[in-house]
Amino acid sequence: MKNAIVGQSGGPTSVINASLAGVYESCVRRGAGRVYGMMHGVRGLLERKFCVLNEALKTPMDIELLKRTPSSYLGSCRYKLPDWKTPEGEEVYKQLFAILEELDIGYFFYIGGNDSMDTIGKLADYGEHIGSDIRFMGVPKTIDNDLMITDHTPGYGSAAKYIGVVMKEVIRDATVYGTKYVTIVEIMGRNAGWLTAAAALARSEDCEGVDMICLPEIPFNVDRFIEKVERMQKNKPSVVIAVSEGVKLEDGRYVCELADDVHAVDAFGHKSLTGTARFLANTVAKRLDTKTRCIELSTLQRCAGHLTSRTDITEAYQVGGAAAKAAFEGHTGEMVALHRISNAPYQCTTGLHPISEVANLEKKVPLEWINEDHTNMKQEFLNYALPLIQAELSPIYVEGLPHHIYLPEATE
Amino acid sequence: MKNAIVGQSGGPTSVINASLAGVYESCVRRGAGRVYGMMHGVRGLLERKFCVLNEALKTPMDIELLKRTPSSYLGSCRYKLPDWKTPEGEEVYKQLFAILEELDIGYFFYIGGNDSMDTIGKLADYGEHIGSDIRFMGVPKTIDNDLMITDHTPGYGSAAKYIGVVMKEVIRDATVYGTKYVTIVEIMGRNAGWLTAAAALARSEDCEGVDMICLPEIPFNVDRFIEKVERMQKNKPSVVIAVSEGVKLEDGRYVCELADDVHAVDAFGHKSLTGTARFLANTVAKRLDTKTRCIELSTLQRCAGHLTSRTDITEAYQVGGAAAKAAFEGHTGEMVALHRISNAPYQCTTGLHPISEVANLEKKVPLEWINEDHTNMKQEFLNYALPLIQAELSPIYVEGLPHHIYLPEATE
Repeated sequence: MKNAIVGQSGGPTSVINASLAGVYESCVRRGAGRVYGMMHGVRGLLERKFCVLNEALKTPMDIELLKRTPSSYLGSCRYKLPDWKTPEGEEVYKQLFAILEELDIGYFFYIGGNDSMDTIGKLADYGEHIGSDIRFMGVPKTIDNDLMITDHTPGYGSAAKYIGVVMKEVIRDATVYGTKYVTIVEIMGRNAGWLTAAAALARSEDCEGVDMICLPEIPFNVDRFIEKVERMQKNKPSVVIAVSEGVKLEDGRYVCELADDVHAVDAFGHKSLTGTARFLANTVAKRLDTKTRCIELSTLQRCAGHLTSRTDITEAYQVGGAAAKAAFEGHTGEMVALHRISNAPYQCTTGLHPISEVANLEKKVPLEWINEDHTNMKQEFLNYALPLIQAELSPIYVEGLPHHIYLPEATE
Repeated sequence: MKNAIVGQSGGPTSVINASLAGVYESCVRRGAGRVYGMMHGVRGLLERKFCVLNEALKTPMDIELLKRTPSSYLGSCRYKLPDWKTPEGEEVYKQLFAILEELDIGYFFYIGGNDSMDTIGKLADYGEHIGSDIRFMGVPKTIDNDLMITDHTPGYGSAAKYIGVVMKEVIRDATVYGTKYVTIVEIMGRNAGWLTAAAALARSEDCEGVDMICLPEIPFNVDRFIEKVERMQKNKPSVVIAVSEGVKLEDGRYVCELADDVHAVDAFGHKSLTGTARFLANTVAKRLDTKTRCIELSTLQRCAGHLTSRTDITEAYQVGGAAAKAAFEGHTGEMVALHRISNAPYQCTTGLHPISEVANLEKKVPLEWINEDHTNMKQEFLNYALPLIQAELSPIYVEGLPHHIYLPEATE
């Protein structure tokens, strides 16, 4: 039987390793020879960096730890494959396929978001072009929840749960003095507001909830924002606001660009978006008579392995397993998607879709799920998100801290 | 039997309500008439804001929820009582004691840190001066762990556990690309580095630990800091650093004052210290060829009720109970302290100390617990801190989020 290889790519999540566990265990059960792990995705594979997962994951306890270990066990990369129809581009594919052939790979899995699905699409195309029989399957993953076709992405449920929990705690903390206080919490999401919307989950019988939610889907106006805060504070001294790092002005500039700080631009030309909450908190402090605080959830929201949704971990494992099943049954160039069958009771199954329906596209929060005042989410969003944050998977605590499984090579 | 009254003061913690539960249940068991709660501490009491805890806490489940609810259930205040030997000052005490008499209070408890113990001391002094028979007892609380006499303060163990867990997760997240990356995490602590030192807990067989820890106890030199980072990054692309918000230069200025931002000064003349990690991350990015990120743990580190130390919650409850016992046995003007009997096995008991030994003093991290290079904590610190973060108290999850008990009046 042929061997399998699996890689992780893009930003980490707290459940991406559950998908790795799903791919690995399903490949083993279906009789794969060896299951290799790419170290740092395709970029590492090009440098011949890989490990043998059958050796790294020795016991059932290792699998349990893997499911509970946040971030990418195999390391990750942000690497876009070139166009294989150019001569320099084709060189890269020849190199990659030579390594895959040498390792006797029959099944190739890539766990990631938009960019990673682009990688799967290109590899499958090139494989077809050269008549390779390697099966290429995409496994969805992103806290951003912005993949098309799939009802939601593994990783989102846990990040949403983390955000809901933290907002409840921040609200309790911020109200304690009974004094005027505006807390602005900055949440990830460059173009899609799924994570910021999750702040709406905090409202419940034991919590007054956040007072305003600002999504990148809605153009942002600083003056109107200040007016709303001023109005809200007349009835309620502590105002807690969730704001997406990606909120943009009507003219298309990011709100954080209004701050004086220099903003770095990364290798892909993406501007660094941090500083939105700080800018808004400073602006509120200047214009209104109130204390302010900004809180950036930063990477904590994507690596909080100590606080995951069991539903999310289970689904992350399932999509990994479904990808392996599909590859062994002959599918290639496809991504596993989650399809919601019903909301009450919540039921979800997996389906397969051509990569072209997913790669390089972005799913945004439906505008009809945002209230008229553009300050909060409607019940439709809660109906969508609540099932995804249900139940917990306890960390395994050793000496007071959650234990992880750790592959030193992934950190070089 | 006389009534009791209890208040919470100063910064919230995730276990301060366990102390409230300890005071409340012990008072009830010892036959107190009613147990009142001051809303927003002494400041609220002066405005006649209080509740009857026997009515608010109806069932044993309410007590369980109280132990798991972060932040101050009764609300808090930052209010310093005036000197009762001045005529205007005495007016305040007369007013307070009139309210206490009207409520038929025999036992007065205040849960808090340095400033709150100052309140207890002054009330007990004035009470003695006027021949009152009200007993005034202090219950220690602060995530800062900077109270004298007591081995540690309730609240510290849970905050330290939170910091250890988060550092492990941040380290996993930061190493994922295998690229050059300096992550600087800002942790609370104006003058004492106890919380920042807790970052050392992350090092374990499954985690390489943080690379540098910067405490306010050690004068900070920006150039030497940059040199150390540069040296570390030669062997290890991802460098993770824990820095106290209160690190100061040799000339006594706070490091965060070097940033261009305007720094607010609060009512007590304390400068707002936020921005240390941001300044250092920006400086590293300017001087070295590396990506950087700053993460401020902000109030998350003091309100993370979803991630507490059971040892800490148990001790928080115990000091509350011990205060009630002492008051009913006739003590006044004292604080309950924790005394460590042994480290292996960890055993701790409570003792009573005159408030004067505690109020307005600050306990710092012993310099001999810091390594010679001033980059990390020695084993002595780990021996001290590890027992305090052991075991967990699971939140009670309702619809996917930890359930709290909630007193709407505490938020006005």
